[in-house]
Amino acid sequence: MADFRPGTPAQDEFLEELTEAGLLIPSGVPGVYGRGQLFEDVRLAFDDLVTRSGANDGPERLRVPPILPREQFESSGYLKSFPHLAGSIFGFEGSESQALKQQARAARHEDWSEFQEMTELVLVPAACYPVYPAIARRGPLPEGGVIVDAGGSYVFRHEPSGDPARLQMFHQREIVRIGEPDAVADWREMWRDRAVDLLRSLGLDANFDVASDPFFGRSGRMLAASQREQALKFEILVPIAGDDPTAVASFNYHQEHFAETFGIELSDGTIAHTACLGFGEERITLALFRAHGLEPADWPMEVRRELWA
Amino acid sequence: MADFRPGTPAQDEFLEELTEAGLLIPSGVPGVYGRGQLFEDVRLAFDDLVTRSGANDGPERLRVPPILPREQFESSGYLKSFPHLAGSIFGFEGSESQALKQQARAARHEDWSEFQEMTELVLVPAACYPVYPAIARRGPLPEGGVIVDAGGSYVFRHEPSGDPARLQMFHQREIVRIGEPDAVADWREMWRDRAVDLLRSLGLDANFDVASDPFFGRSGRMLAASQREQALKFEILVPIAGDDPTAVASFNYHQEHFAETFGIELSDGTIAHTACLGFGEERITLALFRAHGLEPADWPMEVRRELWA
Repeated sequence: MADFRPGTPAQDEFLEELTEAGLLIPSGVPGVYGRGQLFEDVRLAFDDLVTRSGANDGPERLRVPPILPREQFESSGYLKSFPHLAGSIFGFEGSESQALKQQARAARHEDWSEFQEMTELVLVPAACYPVYPAIARRGPLPEGGVIVDAGGSYVFRHEPSGDPARLQMFHQREIVRIGEPDAVADWREMWRDRAVDLLRSLGLDANFDVASDPFFGRSGRMLAASQREQALKFEILVPIAGDDPTAVASFNYHQEHFAETFGIELSDGTIAHTACLGFGEERITLALFRAHGLEPADWPMEVRRELWA
Repeated sequence: MADFRPGTPAQDEFLEELTEAGLLIPSGVPGVYGRGQLFEDVRLAFDDLVTRSGANDGPERLRVPPILPREQFESSGYLKSFPHLAGSIFGFEGSESQALKQQARAARHEDWSEFQEMTELVLVPAACYPVYPAIARRGPLPEGGVIVDAGGSYVFRHEPSGDPARLQMFHQREIVRIGEPDAVADWREMWRDRAVDLLRSLGLDANFDVASDPFFGRSGRMLAASQREQALKFEILVPIAGDDPTAVASFNYHQEHFAETFGIELSDGTIAHTACLGFGEERITLALFRAHGLEPADWPMEVRRELWA
């Protein structure tokens, strides 16, 4: 199993409260939980609120499954930056006698990995990844570029943790902007400010900061420093459990990286720029339960009005 | 890549219509598609209709992510019956120099599987799988047992196909009944009849039949025959593309299999029985587009009223 990060005492205690209330249902593996009815009701209400907030921008809605062609993933550079977080999908292609051996090993909880081969699929690491090749396939962008709302899609991060806010699979509400550099940069700043307002309207102590991604290894530290220096990533932080606030939304400017990788051109034939934003829906749901208590019926009226308009 | 099943001419044609209309968005791998706004609107309307149909039964709602602890999967017997359909999740646990080699191979689209190790997770093969251990963990069932609505959850089947109705990852709207044998059997028949009515109310030519699962190999043929003989599986079939109708819902009686595997007891301490039903949400959505055309605004008024009550 990947390095397990134990929770802090405050995180352990919050997780216990959540499971006792039936909001999270333990699976036996850290970071993998079922979700009770109230948890889902709050998460979906927040998801709707994001939809209402962005409706006037006229985004195109597109939904993606949590799997991605391996070939696209290989081209994306994700394995360079985050090999430790990725999940690849393996399957069985063997004979009947191999199937019997595999089953016998598995039933004894012994190693059956030798019978599994890499498939043409990986798990989606971020909901924007399938968007770029889909847009590229259409040819040059229309004038003004596009805004794609990829919905609250499941994404995978292989990082088992005792922190209930660090899940191995969670809903990332992602919106992608593809267009001219200035338009993309402006969109990102507009949404950053809008998202801070939105989270504050829910009674959360939300603040944004320049941030960096958890790049792998020593060379990753340089990538992180450069990302921070160029302010390519903002995060919005909110208290959940413990002293340090947790990132619940991020705003990333990729410059020409994805457009170059997948071949997305502006209407004049030059290369597009891209940015994306992602709300961590489970983290925001947890922050709401943390701030207002485990019973949404008792939450402040103005918070309930925002969520269930 | 696993054996690719090409589509029939009628299936190829329907897939092309769907992609031209932006209802399905090709990813480059067969059976993996993004979904356009209208497609999702119809799928979610059907999902809501199922919720309304079952509301009086008072199910407990529980949502599960598309990943499952490998240990539970190993105990479930799935690898005995369907090794060819399963997906296991692998990840990277290596050093910085191994990460560099892995990245170099992947960037050239060469084999990087040797750097990947089996994780503690697999993909969920059916949305009821995480339900049994979650219910078992609570101890003996309350009097009368439980009904658990596991929602429209993503499940994985490794079977690349040109048939747009055969997806590698799709939403299975699953409801599980756990209780005394008679109550479980009655519930399954009640829902089977209810589901036929529900699909017919949407203008679909729906009929049920005794069925069997696609068990692996020669020994699987015996399992299928026995399942059929005992009428442990019903399916509802609806025309989608081509001459043969497609299964869009199934109703499975597991007798004591899952309860024994995960230790679910009735209130009197004897072993429970389980049954589940699953609606294939994408298949039903496709059947609706097939039956009524690609523009939901033009669908018959009574169908629109059922879906968007």
